[in-house]
Amino acid sequence: MPAKGENTTDPNCEVRFGGVGGQGIVLAGRLLGKAAALYDGKDAVCTQSYGPEARGGASRSDVVIADEQVDYPFVSRADILAVFFQEAYVLFRDCLKPDGLLIVDTGLVQPFDDDPNLRGIPATEIAESLGSRMAANVVTLGYLVGLTGVVSEESVVKAIQSTLKARIVAMNLKAFDAGLQRAREDSSQ
Amino acid sequence: MPAKGENTTDPNCEVRFGGVGGQGIVLAGRLLGKAAALYDGKDAVCTQSYGPEARGGASRSDVVIADEQVDYPFVSRADILAVFFQEAYVLFRDCLKPDGLLIVDTGLVQPFDDDPNLRGIPATEIAESLGSRMAANVVTLGYLVGLTGVVSEESVVKAIQSTLKARIVAMNLKAFDAGLQRAREDSSQ
Repeated sequence: MPAKGENTTDPNCEVRFGGVGGQGIVLAGRLLGKAAALYDGKDAVCTQSYGPEARGGASRSDVVIADEQVDYPFVSRADILAVFFQEAYVLFRDCLKPDGLLIVDTGLVQPFDDDPNLRGIPATEIAESLGSRMAANVVTLGYLVGLTGVVSEESVVKAIQSTLKARIVAMNLKAFDAGLQRAREDSSQ
Repeated sequence: MPAKGENTTDPNCEVRFGGVGGQGIVLAGRLLGKAAALYDGKDAVCTQSYGPEARGGASRSDVVIADEQVDYPFVSRADILAVFFQEAYVLFRDCLKPDGLLIVDTGLVQPFDDDPNLRGIPATEIAESLGSRMAANVVTLGYLVGLTGVVSEESVVKAIQSTLKARIVAMNLKAFDAGLQRAREDSSQ
């Protein structure tokens, strides 16, 4: 069953990545924001808030993408939530819109039974199979983009090429492709 | 002459780092935000906006620090502006408050004659002398913190230790110290 949040044509999109330090969620947000704004011609704002919940360990990285200028960059009700850490999942799942898309790394997050529109991907496992556990964020980004089309694939490729150090570009392009491929497989089921 | 923006006790502080891709200005903002929120007990929001000016090459990384919850994270009038790129300097200098502190990397930015409260530091040159040009952002962060005390030095040290990969922590702590030291020298003149 495809999630209602998929293949949306809504010009505004609020995306939250939730995890813990070191998982590269800020980078995932930046790549998405740059893809949207620098290469898809939209406007995007990436935000990292360090409030009380950050002191508890969970961290978040928010991206708001709009056709026009983003005037309120906080994600209040997410269209897409991708989480890599159980505590972040518990903390942030209520911010998802009723028809929003929830993506979890199935190796790291044990979702509740009643979450609608849930999609799981073993992102860390896939990244490890490609040679770098660190690329789980980009695997998930590929999955997210493949499911939703919120930004174009080509723009993410450009964002990866222009943002990451040269020596890790190839690995991350593979990770992105692996996520896209998994989305195609899941969508054709 | 000390800038009026120095040693402020104003609980809210808007900081902008302006540069170009690859200079680590997002990281500088994150370190400052984490120091404030995770270790100094304040609230902080870091924002990267990718609007039309980003497509021109200049990029920015904004941090708003508040004693209470940050409710508007865009930097409209900066208390502190640190720039590493001529185009970013030209683009963003008007966002500085009249009594704000302007820091430029003197090797990369040629300031206009009439900028008040200007402080220059050869941050890239200092970073190169320490062995990594990439650490110019953290040299500048040290200079900024040394001049203003907007966050505690200890908190930045913790943010560096908890954010960066282990193999570059020592180098960045040296870079931070070098910036602090330069601030002490400039303040004692």
